[in-house]
Amino acid sequence: MSSSDNDVRTALRSAFAPDALTTDPAQLDSHSVDKGPLEHWQVHTPLAVVFAESVADVQQLVQLSAEHGFPLITRGAGTSVSGGANTTAGSVVLNLTRMNKILAMRPEDEVAVVEPGVINADLNTAAAQHGLMYAPDPASYRTSTIGGNVATNAGGLRCAKYGVTRDSVLALDVVLADGTFIHTGQATFKGVAGYDLTSLFVGSEGTLGIVVGITVRLRHLSQHTETIAAFFDELTTAAQGVLDIGKARVQPAITELLDHRTMLALDEAQGSDLATRGNTLLLIQTDGHGAGIEAEIIREVLRALGATVSDPGSTESERLIELRRHARGDGVVTEVRVGEDVAVPRSRLVDYIRAIQDLAVEHQVQLKVVAHAGDGNLHPTFSVPSSELAPEPEASAGQEPENQQNDDGAPTSAMSRLHAALDGSVRIALEMGGTITGEHGIGTYKLRWLDWEQSPEVIELQRSIKNVFDPDYRFNPGRAIL
Amino acid sequence: MSSSDNDVRTALRSAFAPDALTTDPAQLDSHSVDKGPLEHWQVHTPLAVVFAESVADVQQLVQLSAEHGFPLITRGAGTSVSGGANTTAGSVVLNLTRMNKILAMRPEDEVAVVEPGVINADLNTAAAQHGLMYAPDPASYRTSTIGGNVATNAGGLRCAKYGVTRDSVLALDVVLADGTFIHTGQATFKGVAGYDLTSLFVGSEGTLGIVVGITVRLRHLSQHTETIAAFFDELTTAAQGVLDIGKARVQPAITELLDHRTMLALDEAQGSDLATRGNTLLLIQTDGHGAGIEAEIIREVLRALGATVSDPGSTESERLIELRRHARGDGVVTEVRVGEDVAVPRSRLVDYIRAIQDLAVEHQVQLKVVAHAGDGNLHPTFSVPSSELAPEPEASAGQEPENQQNDDGAPTSAMSRLHAALDGSVRIALEMGGTITGEHGIGTYKLRWLDWEQSPEVIELQRSIKNVFDPDYRFNPGRAIL
Repeated sequence: MSSSDNDVRTALRSAFAPDALTTDPAQLDSHSVDKGPLEHWQVHTPLAVVFAESVADVQQLVQLSAEHGFPLITRGAGTSVSGGANTTAGSVVLNLTRMNKILAMRPEDEVAVVEPGVINADLNTAAAQHGLMYAPDPASYRTSTIGGNVATNAGGLRCAKYGVTRDSVLALDVVLADGTFIHTGQATFKGVAGYDLTSLFVGSEGTLGIVVGITVRLRHLSQHTETIAAFFDELTTAAQGVLDIGKARVQPAITELLDHRTMLALDEAQGSDLATRGNTLLLIQTDGHGAGIEAEIIREVLRALGATVSDPGSTESERLIELRRHARGDGVVTEVRVGEDVAVPRSRLVDYIRAIQDLAVEHQVQLKVVAHAGDGNLHPTFSVPSSELAPEPEASAGQEPENQQNDDGAPTSAMSRLHAALDGSVRIALEMGGTITGEHGIGTYKLRWLDWEQSPEVIELQRSIKNVFDPDYRFNPGRAIL
Repeated sequence: MSSSDNDVRTALRSAFAPDALTTDPAQLDSHSVDKGPLEHWQVHTPLAVVFAESVADVQQLVQLSAEHGFPLITRGAGTSVSGGANTTAGSVVLNLTRMNKILAMRPEDEVAVVEPGVINADLNTAAAQHGLMYAPDPASYRTSTIGGNVATNAGGLRCAKYGVTRDSVLALDVVLADGTFIHTGQATFKGVAGYDLTSLFVGSEGTLGIVVGITVRLRHLSQHTETIAAFFDELTTAAQGVLDIGKARVQPAITELLDHRTMLALDEAQGSDLATRGNTLLLIQTDGHGAGIEAEIIREVLRALGATVSDPGSTESERLIELRRHARGDGVVTEVRVGEDVAVPRSRLVDYIRAIQDLAVEHQVQLKVVAHAGDGNLHPTFSVPSSELAPEPEASAGQEPENQQNDDGAPTSAMSRLHAALDGSVRIALEMGGTITGEHGIGTYKLRWLDWEQSPEVIELQRSIKNVFDPDYRFNPGRAIL
């Protein structure tokens, strides 16, 4: 049953106080999209935005959604880079950012319980008072919410050592599509009673239930870290360095690989001279009580490969890690760019980067690459100059033929070239045994690639699971699964 | 549709070669139960045992099961201590131990691919040649299979640092109830494409699909370990030691707590004098490049609490860890005993042990306790002398009234007292925010406690998921979920 837009707004107004509900056009607009690319998406203005302050608010809204049949798009800070929070036609946005309380901090158990709207950095600040940290550290950690992190199973720089969001989530409170409240999982590090519903919700991009409470495991905040910057003449050698560090049985907390174009971009933004000092940069951080010993082993391993390696206590290295954390999304307005998030078995890092460099040349697009090299998760960014787009019809939103090639060999449009490069980069990752998304999620943007990775049987199983939880497809329709 | 037993045997004989199929009574008997307690279970002899050697064998058997309607009980080495491999009426056992090949070992990626019948220790031996390990180390690691470990999401001693089975499983090959073969997950450390079907299968005790291939993440095999034995006068102080090690920001690979009765049992079996040296024993192992530094911090922390702490390089400590690994299940035939597997938030360890010690006194049963103290996972063993059982009708198998108390205050039967203590120990764990099973699974034995932990809504959700995967309940019926 679907009610008219006016009926929905009237029902919402009688259910929620004026300060918990808005239909202000500017607010509706800002809630209609996130940080993801939009070329494959038709933007729809939502009917309203509800700012929930309690589980009861969420349950009431879900019940109205069931009654009136409107889709609910649940949103934290809207930092998804995959279009996971884009709104669909006739939808109401559930904004959870006011549910931002840390409900419990239990340092002896190394556990905390938070509402979904708690900012990742705020949880870390609170945990740090007890010498603890919440390990998953997406680049958006200063703005993104734990609820959003749970929705996408967010990763970050520290994952190779400390795992992704799923590895830090012990239990969840969830509101189901009929308004039922359930609790999944355990407040203990181990627990195997029944099916792992907690892991099923983590990474499901809000399509199975609305997460209203999260019990997380905390980890030790290291009192000792050492940071190493290593400059290499060759990309190949840098990638070999990552493997050699593994062979030396050192597990760094952070292992970031930056290609030459990324180094040039940092130089341009920061006035530094990185690009003059090598072709590829590895940034590595060790932590824990063995941080010093591990760093010394790493420096030896990398020097043996001919790298120029920073000395112990290098403050430049520390600064570079911070730059790397915040490098994403700096405001370049002169190009249209799409950041990828593929992962490959880490022994294939070099093969993969070489292959997409060839792709970039072939399709005449710009490419820069950073990688969480320790776990084979790459963020290549493909771009074309904005100036090339204006006269092209393909630059508009909506459906667009992919991989369009002119038979006569004339230059194809910039957007077609960009998409051909993106499609190719995804294909190659899959051919190498990788995945189309390591940590950003499918969202709406990557949906067209999902059946390149998943078999029809797996897609069908996921639909069946969706049907169990949300048979009317009212929770975040049109994303995460096909 | 259900065929007669003879029809089923005939169909199996025409499908499988004689050496892949047995109806020999001794084999049927040995395949009808596992290592779990049996008082709550009616043993049924299976119709046949099929020894699969390939995915095609498994698919063929599953198709016959669909055609004839017989339940399939899938089994590895049969080391479940929860009755997870007990057979039901009219069932056929699928024995996977012949599917024992390591299909791929990729040291640079720190990944291996194995068939389900590979023994945990064999995978570790193969990985060790490359300086790697498969981290989950259940006490049964020398006999149990990776497939069985996946079914129960097995843990072990190293979990607090390295995680449980789920944290080491990247991807699965699974045969579904209609014979369809699917592949879930990614061969990369990170991956968030679609729902986490991999985690859903892990720990589902074979009730959703038959796992025929497992891609696991390997970890560094430490070249450096240090082992510490610390004797305490008081249990309370030992548990405080566990928390103080956490506060010193050291994450040991192993943190085992042994109570006085466990020390006495070890002394009796080994001729040692542990019990004369303290009331409680903590066995701790550090690893990695910082092992020596971490061990020194731990020794200081524990000495400050008044413990008698072993010196660096103590060979006795190493031997004690080995004893602890293999202590379980030594052949005491003079008592009936049930080992528990609860977990509590680790700050509640002492409260919990105190409470079950009181329970043991109240119900006049014997109790000994070992705990993976780092993650709050306890294995209390409750027992009564076998001599008390003979004249009691409650000692027979099958349904038995629980918690039976005589109104006139006369001594209740030994089994009733044992069950009262077990029930009480589970209640208390749940009251402290814990779980009824940390790493052994529900199996058939703990099914009666599952709705003490899970809400009706969660139970119902699990049934709905079971219906998606196995609507006829042919895969391992009667266990894992209610």
